[in-house]
Amino acid sequence: MSLTEAQRAEIAAHGQETFSTRRPTVAALEAMLYAPQEVLDHGFLRVIDYMGDDAAIVQAARVSYGRGTRKVSEDAGLIRYLMRHRHSSPFEMCEIKFHVKLPIFVARQWIRHRMASVNEYSARYSILDSEFYLPDPAHMAAQSEVNRQGRGEILAPEAAAEVLDILREDAMRTYRDYERMLDGENGYGLARELGRINLTLNTYTQWYWKIDLHNLMHFLALRIDPHAQYEIRVYAEAMLKILHAWVPTTAAAFEEYRRGAVTFSASMMAVVRRMLAGEVVEQAGSGLSRREWDEMMATLQAPTP
Amino acid sequence: MSLTEAQRAEIAAHGQETFSTRRPTVAALEAMLYAPQEVLDHGFLRVIDYMGDDAAIVQAARVSYGRGTRKVSEDAGLIRYLMRHRHSSPFEMCEIKFHVKLPIFVARQWIRHRMASVNEYSARYSILDSEFYLPDPAHMAAQSEVNRQGRGEILAPEAAAEVLDILREDAMRTYRDYERMLDGENGYGLARELGRINLTLNTYTQWYWKIDLHNLMHFLALRIDPHAQYEIRVYAEAMLKILHAWVPTTAAAFEEYRRGAVTFSASMMAVVRRMLAGEVVEQAGSGLSRREWDEMMATLQAPTP
Amino acid sequence: MSLTEAQRAEIAAHGQETFSTRRPTVAALEAMLYAPQEVLDHGFLRVIDYMGDDAAIVQAARVSYGRGTRKVSEDAGLIRYLMRHRHSSPFEMCEIKFHVKLPIFVARQWIRHRMASVNEYSARYSILDSEFYLPDPAHMAAQSEVNRQGRGEILAPEAAAEVLDILREDAMRTYRDYERMLDGENGYGLARELGRINLTLNTYTQWYWKIDLHNLMHFLALRIDPHAQYEIRVYAEAMLKILHAWVPTTAAAFEEYRRGAVTFSASMMAVVRRMLAGEVVEQAGSGLSRREWDEMMATLQAPTP
Amino acid sequence: MSLTEAQRAEIAAHGQETFSTRRPTVAALEAMLYAPQEVLDHGFLRVIDYMGDDAAIVQAARVSYGRGTRKVSEDAGLIRYLMRHRHSSPFEMCEIKFHVKLPIFVARQWIRHRMASVNEYSARYSILDSEFYLPDPAHMAAQSEVNRQGRGEILAPEAAAEVLDILREDAMRTYRDYERMLDGENGYGLARELGRINLTLNTYTQWYWKIDLHNLMHFLALRIDPHAQYEIRVYAEAMLKILHAWVPTTAAAFEEYRRGAVTFSASMMAVVRRMLAGEVVEQAGSGLSRREWDEMMATLQAPTP
Repeated sequence: MSLTEAQRAEIAAHGQETFSTRRPTVAALEAMLYAPQEVLDHGFLRVIDYMGDDAAIVQAARVSYGRGTRKVSEDAGLIRYLMRHRHSSPFEMCEIKFHVKLPIFVARQWIRHRMASVNEYSARYSILDSEFYLPDPAHMAAQSEVNRQGRGEILAPEAAAEVLDILREDAMRTYRDYERMLDGENGYGLARELGRINLTLNTYTQWYWKIDLHNLMHFLALRIDPHAQYEIRVYAEAMLKILHAWVPTTAAAFEEYRRGAVTFSASMMAVVRRMLAGEVVEQAGSGLSRREWDEMMATLQAPTP
Repeated sequence: MSLTEAQRAEIAAHGQETFSTRRPTVAALEAMLYAPQEVLDHGFLRVIDYMGDDAAIVQAARVSYGRGTRKVSEDAGLIRYLMRHRHSSPFEMCEIKFHVKLPIFVARQWIRHRMASVNEYSARYSILDSEFYLPDPAHMAAQSEVNRQGRGEILAPEAAAEVLDILREDAMRTYRDYERMLDGENGYGLARELGRINLTLNTYTQWYWKIDLHNLMHFLALRIDPHAQYEIRVYAEAMLKILHAWVPTTAAAFEEYRRGAVTFSASMMAVVRRMLAGEVVEQAGSGLSRREWDEMMATLQAPTP
Repeated sequence: MSLTEAQRAEIAAHGQETFSTRRPTVAALEAMLYAPQEVLDHGFLRVIDYMGDDAAIVQAARVSYGRGTRKVSEDAGLIRYLMRHRHSSPFEMCEIKFHVKLPIFVARQWIRHRMASVNEYSARYSILDSEFYLPDPAHMAAQSEVNRQGRGEILAPEAAAEVLDILREDAMRTYRDYERMLDGENGYGLARELGRINLTLNTYTQWYWKIDLHNLMHFLALRIDPHAQYEIRVYAEAMLKILHAWVPTTAAAFEEYRRGAVTFSASMMAVVRRMLAGEVVEQAGSGLSRREWDEMMATLQAPTP
Repeated sequence: MSLTEAQRAEIAAHGQETFSTRRPTVAALEAMLYAPQEVLDHGFLRVIDYMGDDAAIVQAARVSYGRGTRKVSEDAGLIRYLMRHRHSSPFEMCEIKFHVKLPIFVARQWIRHRMASVNEYSARYSILDSEFYLPDPAHMAAQSEVNRQGRGEILAPEAAAEVLDILREDAMRTYRDYERMLDGENGYGLARELGRINLTLNTYTQWYWKIDLHNLMHFLALRIDPHAQYEIRVYAEAMLKILHAWVPTTAAAFEEYRRGAVTFSASMMAVVRRMLAGEVVEQAGSGLSRREWDEMMATLQAPTP
C-alpha cells in the first residue's frame, strides 16, 4: 500500500474528530473508520461512512415506532428468517461507503454490480500515479486446463520472475510515455483524456463506492467464491471482515445461509433422496451429467468446516 | 396525526440515547431525528437515519483521502457546478431514511419511484388501524375543466360537507366489515390477506423509505411541482424542509438549478432570441402551438420570486 | 374476464396484421400474442410484444457476430450452465411486455419488483370501471394458525357466502358513491383524483408491464412459491406457461435449477452428510432449530415429482 | 473497422433469414439490422434486435386494448407532451439491443450508465485480438487551458505523428508480450485472466448492450454533448441516427425538447425577464457569476440552428 505522507496526514486528521449523534452507532466499525486496509501490492479498502446496524434491520422489518428490538435471541431469529427466505428489503435499510484503491482490470469486474453508487478518480481531469499491480509469485499461475476462465498450476519461480519483469517493464514504459505525452514543457502537452489510453490495465485507480447491505452481500456471495478471480476476491475478503464488525448477527446468518449454503437441482435432489433411502446410486443411472455429478459428489463428500 | 401513547413513548425513549461517532454529523438534522412531522390529517414523516452531509458530496467528487473540503465558497461552487451540469453521482453518496405514514392512494404514486428501498407495514401479517384520509374542505375540489388530471374550483361548503360524509361513512363501514370478517370469535376468522381487500384507498399505511440524495431531489422535483396531486405534494414539501436542514448548500443549489429553473425547447429558444433582438413575436408566427406558447409566456411574464 | 365488445374488436383487429422481420421470432409465442388469458374473476394477462429467444441468450453469452448457435445440445448445455451458476446477464438480453388486468391489492405486491417498466391506467385521468375481485369460495380461507401471513382452512359454505355478500355489497356501494361524487350533473363533479380514494382495494386496475427474462424468472421464483398469496400466484402461473412457449430451453432449466431446486444451509449440509454416512441424526443433536429441522425433513422426504 | 472474412460471412448469413411476425415492425430499422456501422478506426455499432415503435409508446401511455393509435397528429402531440413533461415510463416500453466494438477506455465511461444490460467479451475466457485505437491526427489535441477535462488546440502535424508512434509502439509491444505470456508452447502459458492486465486501455473490446428507449435518450443527451469525450460521442452520434430510423416522432421530440432545449437557472430567468422588459443588464448587476453569465449569453446569442 503506497500512501504519501500527505495522504496519511489527511487521513489521520480526518479520523480524530468525534461528534455526538442520536443515530445507531457500531463501536467495532467506528474503530475501523477511515483506516486503510492493505489489499494487493498497492491497493487498499477503507470505510468512509455507514448507516444502520443489525437492529436497524429488525426495526425496518417491523416498521417500528421506536428501536423495535426485543430479546437478542428474537432479533437474531428474525434476521436468520429474513436471510433464509430471501426477504431482501430490510437489509437494504443499511448502507456503507468505501474508499477503494484497485487495479483497473479489477475495477472493470467490480463495476458490473450496478446496484451501487460510484465516484471514480478521473483521468480526464487529473494525472494518475505511477502505480501498477504486479502479482505475487505465489499467485502467478498458468492457464487452467479444466476451467477455461481459471488458473491452474503456479508458475515455476524462474518463469514467474521473467513474467514479472515483462509486466513491470511494460507498465513502466507505458507510464513514462504517458508522462511524456502529457508534459506541456518537455513533451507534447497532450490532453489528459487521450494520454491515459496508453496505460496498462494493471494501473491503479480509486473510487468511492457506496452500497446497501443487501447488495453488498450479493457482491460478496459472488466475489468470495473460489471461482472469482483472485485479485477481486481479496477485496471481497477484506469486506467480509468489515461485515462481521458492522452487523455481526447478519454476518453470521450470511455465513450460514448464503456462503455455507448449497443448492441442489431437482435432479440432484432426486439422487440425494435415493441415497438417503439406502440405494447405491452411480452417475450412469443418476440422470446427471458427469460434470453435475462430480459437482454434487464434491459437495456431499466435503468435510464439514 | 394520531399516535397512541405507547407509540409516543417508544419514539421518545428512542430519541434520548446519544452516541459518539467519527462520522459526518449534521446538528440541524440531529435535532429533527425521530420526531414525527404532521402531514395531512393522520399522516406523518420522520427522519430515522441519515448518512453524509454537504462536505461528503465534495469529498466524493474529489475522491479525497481526508475530509476533502476547502474554503466554504469553493465547496459551494463545486456543489453548484455539479448540480448545474447534472453530475449526479456525488449526490448519490448521501442517504436518508424516513418513516412515513400515508394514505394507500398516495403510497401507490410514491412507489413509482423505483430507486429507493421500502419496507411497508404488512396487512397480510398484521391488522391495519382504523385511520383513513378525509380531505380538508379547502382542498376538496371539482374536476378541472382544462386539465384532465387536475383539480379545478373548490366545492361549495355544503357540497364539500356532503362528499365528506360519503367518504367518512364508506370508509367506516368497510373498516367495520373488515374487522368483522377478520374476527375469529364473533366474525368469520377470515385470512388477513383477504380481509384487507375490503378497505378503501384512503386507508393509511406506513413504511420505512430510504433513498439517496440524488434520487430524493428527483422525487422532490417531480412531486413539489404544482401538477403533482396535492396529497403527495405536502409530503414532498415536508421533505424539502428536511433537505434544507440536512444539506443547506445542496438545497440552495437545488432551488436555483432545479426547482426554480426553466427549460425552453429549441423552438422556444428561437422565439426568445427574436424577442431579445427587439422583435415583436406573436403565437401565429412563433412555430409554437397555442399550448406551448401559453406555457412559455406564463414563464417569461411570471414575477421573479 | 370481462371485456366489452369494443375491446374484443380492438384486440382482434390488432392481432390480424402480420409483418416481415429479420428479428428472432418464436412461433409458439406469436400464436399467443395479444390474446387475453383469463386470471381470477375479471382479470387477464396478455403478451403484447417480446424480444429474443433461447438462441439470443446463447448469442449474447458468446458475444457472437452471427446467430451464435451451435448444436442444440451444446446450446442447451450452455443455458443450463448459465442458470446453474447464476450468470444472469445473458438472460437480461430477452424482454417481454404484458398487458395485465389485476386487482389493486395484487398490483401493490407486484410493483415491489422494481426491475421492470410500468404504465398503469390512471384514475386521476380516467374513470375506473365497476369491476372488483370476489374470491371463489374454494379460495375463501380462514387465517392460518401456524403462519401469520397465510391462509388456513377453507371457510364453511355458509360463512363463505356471507363474506362474499359483505365484499360485494361494500364494493358496489363504494363504487356507486364514487360515481355519484364524480358525476358533474347529478352528483358533485368531484376531481377524479379525489373520488377514487373511496374505492376498495379489490377494484381492478390494469397496466402495461415490461420486464427482462432474468427479472421475470426472479419474479416467478418468488410468486409461484406456495407462500405467495394465491391471487398473485395465479398470474405467475399464467406467465410460467408463457415462459415455456417463449424460451423452452430456458424454461426447462428454470424448472430444474430454480423452481425445483433446494438450498440447504451450512448446518443442514452437515446433517445431510452425517445421514449419508449412515448415521441416524435426530433434531436434538442436529444443531438445527425445530422449525429448520422440519423444513429440511419435509424436503428430504418429499416424493420426487 | 476490421472484420475477418469469417465474421462478415456470419453476419451476412444471419441477416438473410426473414420471419413472419405480428409484432410492431419498423421497416427503416429492419433495413439496418445486423449491419455494422463503422465508428473510430476499428470499432463498430450494429443493431441486433429491437422491440416497439412510436406507436408502442402511445399504446402504453393509453394502456390500450388494441394498437391504441389515432390520428398521426394526435399521436405525435402525445409523444411531444410526454417528452416535454418528462413522463418517462411510456418510453421505457421500447427496447433496443446493440453489438458494439469499442476501446476499453470508452467502455469504462459507457458502463457508468447502469440502467442497461451488458454481456462483454471475456478476456478471462478468450484471447483478445490485436486491435487498439489510434486517434486520427485531426482529433489529437492538447490539454485544454480553460477546461480541466477537455481538449484544446489540435497538435501540430509533426507532434501528432510522434505521439501516434508512441501509442502504436506501446500498444504493439504490450500486445506482443501479452501473446508471449499466454503462449503455452513458446511462452509461459500464463492464465488469460492475468495476461490481459498487460494490455493498454486503447485495446478494443466488444459487448452486447441492451437498453430501453428512455434510458437510451438519457445516454444520448449526455454523450452527444460537446463536453463528452470525442471517442464516446461518435458512438452516440451513430446511435442518434438509428434513433431517427427507429422512432422518428420520438426522435424529433428528443431534438426539440432535450437536445435543442436550454435550461435557465432561477437567477438566469430573472435576468432574461429584465432583458425582455427592455432593461440593459450587465454581469456585474446580474447576480450571476462570470462563468454563468458567459454560459447564458452564449446561449442567448447563439444562432438558431
